[in-house]
Amino acid sequence: MKTLNILGICGSLRQSSTNMGLLRYAQEHAPVEIKVKIADLSEVPFFNADMKEKPGAVINLMANFAEADAILFACPEYNYSLAPALKNALDWASREPDNGLLTGKPAAIMGSGGGMGSARAQYHLRQVCVFLNLHLLNKPEIFCNAFTGSFDNKGCLVDEKIQELILQQLDALIKLTEHFKLKT
Amino acid sequence: MKTLNILGICGSLRQSSTNMGLLRYAQEHAPVEIKVKIADLSEVPFFNADMKEKPGAVINLMANFAEADAILFACPEYNYSLAPALKNALDWASREPDNGLLTGKPAAIMGSGGGMGSARAQYHLRQVCVFLNLHLLNKPEIFCNAFTGSFDNKGCLVDEKIQELILQQLDALIKLTEHFKLKT
Amino acid sequence: MKTLNILGICGSLRQSSTNMGLLRYAQEHAPVEIKVKIADLSEVPFFNADMKEKPGAVINLMANFAEADAILFACPEYNYSLAPALKNALDWASREPDNGLLTGKPAAIMGSGGGMGSARAQYHLRQVCVFLNLHLLNKPEIFCNAFTGSFDNKGCLVDEKIQELILQQLDALIKLTEHFKLKT
Amino acid sequence: MKTLNILGICGSLRQSSTNMGLLRYAQEHAPVEIKVKIADLSEVPFFNADMKEKPGAVINLMANFAEADAILFACPEYNYSLAPALKNALDWASREPDNGLLTGKPAAIMGSGGGMGSARAQYHLRQVCVFLNLHLLNKPEIFCNAFTGSFDNKGCLVDEKIQELILQQLDALIKLTEHFKLKT
Repeated sequence: MKTLNILGICGSLRQSSTNMGLLRYAQEHAPVEIKVKIADLSEVPFFNADMKEKPGAVINLMANFAEADAILFACPEYNYSLAPALKNALDWASREPDNGLLTGKPAAIMGSGGGMGSARAQYHLRQVCVFLNLHLLNKPEIFCNAFTGSFDNKGCLVDEKIQELILQQLDALIKLTEHFKLKT
Repeated sequence: MKTLNILGICGSLRQSSTNMGLLRYAQEHAPVEIKVKIADLSEVPFFNADMKEKPGAVINLMANFAEADAILFACPEYNYSLAPALKNALDWASREPDNGLLTGKPAAIMGSGGGMGSARAQYHLRQVCVFLNLHLLNKPEIFCNAFTGSFDNKGCLVDEKIQELILQQLDALIKLTEHFKLKT
Repeated sequence: MKTLNILGICGSLRQSSTNMGLLRYAQEHAPVEIKVKIADLSEVPFFNADMKEKPGAVINLMANFAEADAILFACPEYNYSLAPALKNALDWASREPDNGLLTGKPAAIMGSGGGMGSARAQYHLRQVCVFLNLHLLNKPEIFCNAFTGSFDNKGCLVDEKIQELILQQLDALIKLTEHFKLKT
Repeated sequence: MKTLNILGICGSLRQSSTNMGLLRYAQEHAPVEIKVKIADLSEVPFFNADMKEKPGAVINLMANFAEADAILFACPEYNYSLAPALKNALDWASREPDNGLLTGKPAAIMGSGGGMGSARAQYHLRQVCVFLNLHLLNKPEIFCNAFTGSFDNKGCLVDEKIQELILQQLDALIKLTEHFKLKT
């Protein structure tokens, strides 16, 4: 079977981000035939229609989107909505031909935050994905509390229940991706 | 009567932005005792909790928020949600003491976009303002279609009905601001 | 090929509802192998967990959901959100075993309303469908203005562009439904 | 000082509703000069524009809205959105002259539900209140988990932290109401 490429997009830019911890866990525990690449958003500037040339970091990000078979979001919640770095990555992609090569790709959302585990931001992200025409998994939804011991001080996920949930979500995302690939 | 300071925040960074055109109209037609300052977001980086020192552009923006009596948003819609530059300005402010000096301040939203005039983004912004504890005007809501002749090619507002609506919204925002100032 | 059963759910209860007009158009113009049944919500009471016995209208509605291969919503907007009759039909279904026999079924949304064509309600409905685990079409979205001549005075759809859009949406819904049926 | 009339609207119709428990607590512990009346929605039918005469239960409800100085919502979450009975009460009110006598009235939301304490429904209700032009309190938000011992088996609130939060919210609602009354 061909390798599936999953692109991880994390909305938080800090080193010990718990959202990045979720993505790392998925990356390290994905089945062997799955490659999870985590996008580097640290140098991607705000989208600005006046910009004449695409910066290198944007070119790389667009290449990542192009080769991805599916997208895995790690979605923080800032002030009850999306992290700008995550939204901005999608805004850049949406300007590419064929809707950033996103149209029709499967995707899943997980997130870590305060008491509601970034739920408020995740529902905003779901609305964005309607326009981008991503096929989002409904379930399992993953809402992690970042402040109750689920992560160590480097942002690594140590909570076994959430680890199990991530494996279930990955599995569902892989199934959906293969399902759509078979079709075409 | 003391001058009221209104801070304008525009989510689009491009020169001929129609959202900036809405703010400029408000700025140029505000009553004499009202000063509308438009924040410069062009150099404000993505918020990152690892950043040790606040960049100059952020320091200036925070000073703008501190001296503002009210906030006036010009809210684009990118992919059915907020423009990252606008959201990011609020994320920086929310990290300041006393909730970015935003708590309890009156605010209003106008926006320009596609067929729905940025409505989908505006409702996301309203949810953000719950957390920030801004007192948002309910009405009038301002939804402009950017593609049907309401703006000239420099993004200047030429539609008289929307011009009138902006004056009404400014008036309502000023009344609400004075009302809250009287109280304290 | 086996007949596909599509269940139409209309949130408005009045006779000349334009939303019902959208459903009727779909019903009358569906391909021969597709049967569009329109649910009768007129006697379905508010869900109340204290109710000991299911009323007949609810029993019929649940049978409709059970035999449906896909759901087609005609979604009005009342006060920026869902029509209670539509939401209530889903609330009843969600209490049935296996999530009202909704889990995993494909669905599509169209709607008629004011200037935004019920968009605000449709995004609320999309959030509901995440919990119900319906596979919603992203596109085409159908937003009709009820007050600009698209309907005659009996609520019948006369706008050719929207008629064409409904056929496209039906076609996409049928493809998605067959796609999921093939899989299982 | 004149008595303030607060109208409580509960979205759940069952006897031992925890949301009704929240309202009862507010009613029983409001300061003496505040009267909290709880609306009876049990006989209010679905709004239908074809209905020629307003049923008695609707006439009573409209009278409740008319005499209310402020609204206090107890907002359940059904399938990630609003309870139809609550939404329907507002839909009826919105058809009355002057926007159901709601325009400009202060309001607050509390709610009990699953793990997120009805938060998803509460944000939908907030969007509804924009159209109705209610002045909603931002804080404190009240999100109760109905399944972790905060209520007894009759739906009475026994959790002291939430009891305290309700008193704080009532206090904020009263202050906002007096503030707006003074103004006019």
